[in-house]
Amino acid sequence: MSVLVVGSTALDSIKTPRAEAPRLLGGSASHAALAASFFAPVRLVGIVGRDFPGRYLALYRRRGIDLAGLQVAEGRTFHWAGEYEVNMNHRRTLRTELGVFERFQPQLPAAYRTTPFVLLANIAPALQHHVLDQMRWPRFVLADTMDLWLNTALPDLLRLLRRVDALVLNDGEARQLSGEDNLLAAARRIHRLGPAHVIIKKGEHGSLLSGPDGLFLCPAYPLARVVDPTGAGDSFAGGLMGYLARAGGNPRRHLRAAMLHGSVVASFCCEGFGVRRTTRVTRAEIARRVAELRRLARVD
Amino acid sequence: MSVLVVGSTALDSIKTPRAEAPRLLGGSASHAALAASFFAPVRLVGIVGRDFPGRYLALYRRRGIDLAGLQVAEGRTFHWAGEYEVNMNHRRTLRTELGVFERFQPQLPAAYRTTPFVLLANIAPALQHHVLDQMRWPRFVLADTMDLWLNTALPDLLRLLRRVDALVLNDGEARQLSGEDNLLAAARRIHRLGPAHVIIKKGEHGSLLSGPDGLFLCPAYPLARVVDPTGAGDSFAGGLMGYLARAGGNPRRHLRAAMLHGSVVASFCCEGFGVRRTTRVTRAEIARRVAELRRLARVD
Repeated sequence: MSVLVVGSTALDSIKTPRAEAPRLLGGSASHAALAASFFAPVRLVGIVGRDFPGRYLALYRRRGIDLAGLQVAEGRTFHWAGEYEVNMNHRRTLRTELGVFERFQPQLPAAYRTTPFVLLANIAPALQHHVLDQMRWPRFVLADTMDLWLNTALPDLLRLLRRVDALVLNDGEARQLSGEDNLLAAARRIHRLGPAHVIIKKGEHGSLLSGPDGLFLCPAYPLARVVDPTGAGDSFAGGLMGYLARAGGNPRRHLRAAMLHGSVVASFCCEGFGVRRTTRVTRAEIARRVAELRRLARVD
Repeated sequence: MSVLVVGSTALDSIKTPRAEAPRLLGGSASHAALAASFFAPVRLVGIVGRDFPGRYLALYRRRGIDLAGLQVAEGRTFHWAGEYEVNMNHRRTLRTELGVFERFQPQLPAAYRTTPFVLLANIAPALQHHVLDQMRWPRFVLADTMDLWLNTALPDLLRLLRRVDALVLNDGEARQLSGEDNLLAAARRIHRLGPAHVIIKKGEHGSLLSGPDGLFLCPAYPLARVVDPTGAGDSFAGGLMGYLARAGGNPRRHLRAAMLHGSVVASFCCEGFGVRRTTRVTRAEIARRVAELRRLARVD
């Protein structure tokens, strides 16, 4: 089955303590779509400007991503520039140029409207609503978000939470949204806002699923070296949704394995600037790392 | 088989944002010995003053802990006072009165010297050496340590690392000892200092074992509420060594399960001031929580 991915499609200029790279393919939808494409057909909804490099379009196409929903508009592509500290959990934004993104109104091609799996990657909640409004009976909707929307669009976000099956957010965002310091308490409060499944990402410490089948503690694949963590969370969500779409059936039965696969795709994402490593990965490498991660977490 | 535990035996006065409790039973050896006592016979080596409450001696005895190695000396018991912030990963020491601990020279009763499992709980490395000097062919030696010894007794500690099978320390200490920010790189460097097994504790994020059988990612039991984390690391090490002693045979084969049991005893420790919760726990409750933790981390 297919996954619809809506989010930002951007150019990222990234600086780390060791290196830097300009105008990489970035944005929540790009990372998520590429991650999902290892498992299932992907339909991308986004907007880029006329300056968007043709090689990035070719890269999407090589991964079999359907671009009928990608608008190419007059103007410049969304450009984000950021810098990481030695501790890569800390980064600061150097520049944000919205470009054509400022007037983005996701318009779904007719064929997209019945896509069973919908990933509302990180983007303004109003746009996430706009996409959902156009969908017909999706089987499973996962929304991602970020602190920016908690600070600037909370009412929209709260309304969205009543319309989605699952919410994925990081630990700091979960604490902010719930007002609870303890993550179990935070998950419980977020359930009351709507989503049956709450997934809290803890970076290198893995992630936590709270849902109707109880808790799941998902480990992160341990990396000896992180090159660039940008897009890791988007890759996690994309890999997760791609796996669910491939598994078919009742998503509840596959969520744990889906998180493990998302976690592994995210680990590859961190090993290169932008999507450089992710796009060179093979299904076999993903499978090997998933098997290894299972072994690393096995007690007996 | 038995576990020998050497470390500090203290009175702790602890303040948290919600409550406070004076003169609790504390110290690395107290927490570790009680934790180990759920699984195996424990021999305690430590020192207390004449002011040490008889009810704490009775508590040790109720848990079947052998006190032949506990010196009762003229003077006052080691007293530590500390205060936790709302984020309980941060605490500050309000007072440290060494008392009789200042002249502690661990003297092992003859019967202790052949104990197969030796836990050198957190204490000055010179004293850990002094205990090892008196042991005859222990089967498995685990040393704990803290940042204080990295800062004030590094040569002693480095010499100790060449004499132990396993070292347990927290993530910050592992980074300091190794000079590596990445924990996998840190573990690799610490192996080169001696220990075949390196266990890095990450508090609520679980722990990591690096050893001849590869890595193991051990989850922490998720708690909805932490009352007092003092002694959690000591309880982890104690539970781990108690489990290994009970399992017998080759410790390598049981280390993963031992860490899981240590993790669960540590979770109980956090649910009460001092050892209040730990001493009320039953073996059945521990077994239930271990089974639950296995379920929480299981993918399929």
